Amino acid sequence: MNPKELTDLSRLCIHTITVKPWNIEEAAKKFSAAGVKGITVWRDTLEGRNIKQTGKMLREQGLTIVSSCRGGFFPGKDERKRKAAIDDNRRAIDEAAELGTAILVLVCGADPTQSLEDSRKQIQDGIVALLPDAAAAGVRLAIEPLHPMYADTRSAINTLSQANDMAEALHSPWVGVAVDVYHLWWDPCLGREIKRCGENGNLLAFHVCDWKVPTTDLLLDRGLMGEGCIPLKKIRGWVESAGFNGFNEVEIFSSAWWKEDQSGFLHKIIHAYREYV
Amino acid sequence: MNPKELTDLSRLCIHTITVKPWNIEEAAKKFSAAGVKGITVWRDTLEGRNIKQTGKMLREQGLTIVSSCRGGFFPGKDERKRKAAIDDNRRAIDEAAELGTAILVLVCGADPTQSLEDSRKQIQDGIVALLPDAAAAGVRLAIEPLHPMYADTRSAINTLSQANDMAEALHSPWVGVAVDVYHLWWDPCLGREIKRCGENGNLLAFHVCDWKVPTTDLLLDRGLMGEGCIPLKKIRGWVESAGFNGFNEVEIFSSAWWKEDQSGFLHKIIHAYREYV
Repeated sequence: MNPKELTDLSRLCIHTITVKPWNIEEAAKKFSAAGVKGITVWRDTLEGRNIKQTGKMLREQGLTIVSSCRGGFFPGKDERKRKAAIDDNRRAIDEAAELGTAILVLVCGADPTQSLEDSRKQIQDGIVALLPDAAAAGVRLAIEPLHPMYADTRSAINTLSQANDMAEALHSPWVGVAVDVYHLWWDPCLGREIKRCGENGNLLAFHVCDWKVPTTDLLLDRGLMGEGCIPLKKIRGWVESAGFNGFNEVEIFSSAWWKEDQSGFLHKIIHAYREYV
Repeated sequence: MNPKELTDLSRLCIHTITVKPWNIEEAAKKFSAAGVKGITVWRDTLEGRNIKQTGKMLREQGLTIVSSCRGGFFPGKDERKRKAAIDDNRRAIDEAAELGTAILVLVCGADPTQSLEDSRKQIQDGIVALLPDAAAAGVRLAIEPLHPMYADTRSAINTLSQANDMAEALHSPWVGVAVDVYHLWWDPCLGREIKRCGENGNLLAFHVCDWKVPTTDLLLDRGLMGEGCIPLKKIRGWVESAGFNGFNEVEIFSSAWWKEDQSGFLHKIIHAYREYV
């Protein structure tokens, strides 16, 4: 169950949002110069750009485009809202294909004016509606279970068990799951559910950061790896034992870190990756 | 599964911390005058008081002392810390007995410098150590599973399933579970686990408040019932179908509500209780 030793940066991916103050061109140059090999692109960084050209630029910097963030937000009491979400997800799938990445991460959404059960059904219906588009584009949809503290508006899928259930029910080569330690570290069933996720061929992505003690903001106080209490090596061990051999993606939303010099922060990310992941 | 109609306040209990600006004497007078029938006493309100006399005072106001809050905080890497926690829990049991309540609520604790598995084992060991004291005092210990966002320092027991597992493993008439909607509303297994909790005779307490959208603080931004998105009537229906017929306890930590006039807040609690619980 021990994770493989991370002797180099060949499996290190960083999300563009982790270094939010940088635009995508700057992030690409800096990642590449530092030896980082993967990038996950948040859609906002593509605004006003030719997406195919941007994908080419990233590859020319030696970066693998690990995934695109994010689609989802399917639920809504209002049918028009749900249809608009499907349309936006179709655009997200097209963008992912143009960019040249094989994975679109889904933050599934929730509508606090209706039951979680209704939101969950609408999430599943939304993904079903997208399956032909995903297949045509060659883009896999990764259901990301979110921490229960986001069950009001961000996701009605709050455990890996739920994400596994849904992925297995959909039973499509175009649907899988993204495992993020921040959302799932507390779950007593995590080891078992990671194993199940891998065995069923659904483990598409692995996101790391840390849970700070104390955490002072529900959204923007994620920690750099090693700053908090998440057993990163143990979880990476489970993920790798389940057959995952892809990138370890650093996804940190942090008002505090975004205020710092981002080059210094990138240096710290690389150090923390070698030391704590 | 529909909950019983709440035609009066005979099952309304309010936690002293809900009206934190009031001391216990003032809370008792105001609750009594408003027709509230139950009070749950937080231990800090007893400081500097004769506990037996305080219990007598509460009963003379016509109040049932539903439970005492709180024992727990068992885990610690340091053995001395764990022993000190046991000692403090023994005092809490004695205080509960002196006060004249049959339930002590346990916020079980967690130590972020060790694994959740270690913390869980220490919680169970701590409760085992207290069983003779609980039996001698006639005080039942209610394991309260806490929201996963508190898994770092407040509780390594984060789902009702875990609390049920532990209560069933301990298999003692002096151990049960407290169900708090704030901590558990998001859980897809909640209905099933409430049923299990009741069937095994472990459902000792039911706490209500609401989850605000958005929630701006991890600890002190709980909502008054009706202010948020928790399906209170549905959950009360489950709890009552599981055989629970005790008090509905209003437990709200809220910097915003504590700033308001507490008499006005009490009036709003009673209105919200009739309308939304």
